[in-house]
Amino acid sequence: MRGHRDRIVIDTQGRGTTDLTQQVQSVVGHSGVATGLCHVFCLHTSASLILCENADPSVREDLERFLADAVPDGSPLFKHMSEGPDDMPAHVRSILTSSSVTLPVEHGRLLLGTWQGLYLYEHRVGSHRRRLILTVTGLDD
Amino acid sequence: MRGHRDRIVIDTQGRGTTDLTQQVQSVVGHSGVATGLCHVFCLHTSASLILCENADPSVREDLERFLADAVPDGSPLFKHMSEGPDDMPAHVRSILTSSSVTLPVEHGRLLLGTWQGLYLYEHRVGSHRRRLILTVTGLDD
Amino acid sequence: MRGHRDRIVIDTQGRGTTDLTQQVQSVVGHSGVATGLCHVFCLHTSASLILCENADPSVREDLERFLADAVPDGSPLFKHMSEGPDDMPAHVRSILTSSSVTLPVEHGRLLLGTWQGLYLYEHRVGSHRRRLILTVTGLDD
Repeated sequence: MRGHRDRIVIDTQGRGTTDLTQQVQSVVGHSGVATGLCHVFCLHTSASLILCENADPSVREDLERFLADAVPDGSPLFKHMSEGPDDMPAHVRSILTSSSVTLPVEHGRLLLGTWQGLYLYEHRVGSHRRRLILTVTGLDD
Repeated sequence: MRGHRDRIVIDTQGRGTTDLTQQVQSVVGHSGVATGLCHVFCLHTSASLILCENADPSVREDLERFLADAVPDGSPLFKHMSEGPDDMPAHVRSILTSSSVTLPVEHGRLLLGTWQGLYLYEHRVGSHRRRLILTVTGLDD
Repeated sequence: MRGHRDRIVIDTQGRGTTDLTQQVQSVVGHSGVATGLCHVFCLHTSASLILCENADPSVREDLERFLADAVPDGSPLFKHMSEGPDDMPAHVRSILTSSSVTLPVEHGRLLLGTWQGLYLYEHRVGSHRRRLILTVTGLDD
């Protein structure tokens, strides 16, 4: 099996999404894998990965509004407040979305739907350095 | 490594679940992989994949009622309305569930729990053609 | 490709989390895989897997309080009550979290963030025997 391990570091600008699709695409392109899978893993519990509609930015704004309403900062349900009112919601948001995604690779590229983009979702209000581990594995073909 | 790439196309009948277990099982059976993993990926942002109890259909009806309540169509939280009041909720539901699942394979078959079924979940009210990418990878055994 | 299949059985003590990190670490250590991926799969639809902050136990208590509030036992939304008022919420919680996780392996160990722990989340009120399937796959390195 061909395989490739790589890393991406993203400095986020606080709560919100960063499009990772091209950066991950680039790692896949350099991996030498034609057909296989690409696993992306976020080494944090207050940021996560989503696959989301990539055409209209209001989709990600609406998603943020939904999550802010569903998991309110400073909710009286939460006792873990020592790192700020946005920390526990960030943990819950990360668990409701996902710490990792596995994407198909074909013809040496990510095989995504037309409207699918891969985003890092920073759930903390402040900016953070987020580290991602990429693993590209190939089928014998 | 043995490996196999395949595709499944499902024409959904609008919002609700379609049992994929036998179709995916069949691809695994033809892959030649005895022990390994099967990755299923949904190329869309308004349909998703779930593993759900497979014995009592009321479980999936209750799940639908829960999601319809948690992520209401036409919610005032959502501004992305151009594709209809069910479009943005479909994106949120897809993110809260999952665009992909990875399942263990053993003895040339999916290794699932007794009550686990794999379902495509159409989140739009109307019917859509949904495409899935399957990747079966084998351990050397 | 090097690969390894293993199993873990956990007898839960009812609703709540069990730290799996060391047990999964141990399987990875015995697998002979230096660089690769570890897939953990839960064979049940009312227990699931989460990656969660591992330093302050109040994070997991807050998460439980959030889920108990978001998916209430005995909710009038649910008709599937034959197995008790906590059964349908357990199915919903499992779907909102995840039945499986894939983790990077490096230097023969799980490559996790400093604050990331892997937990089995029992969503039923009573204790259950939960079975997990582990698959460790290695890159040629």
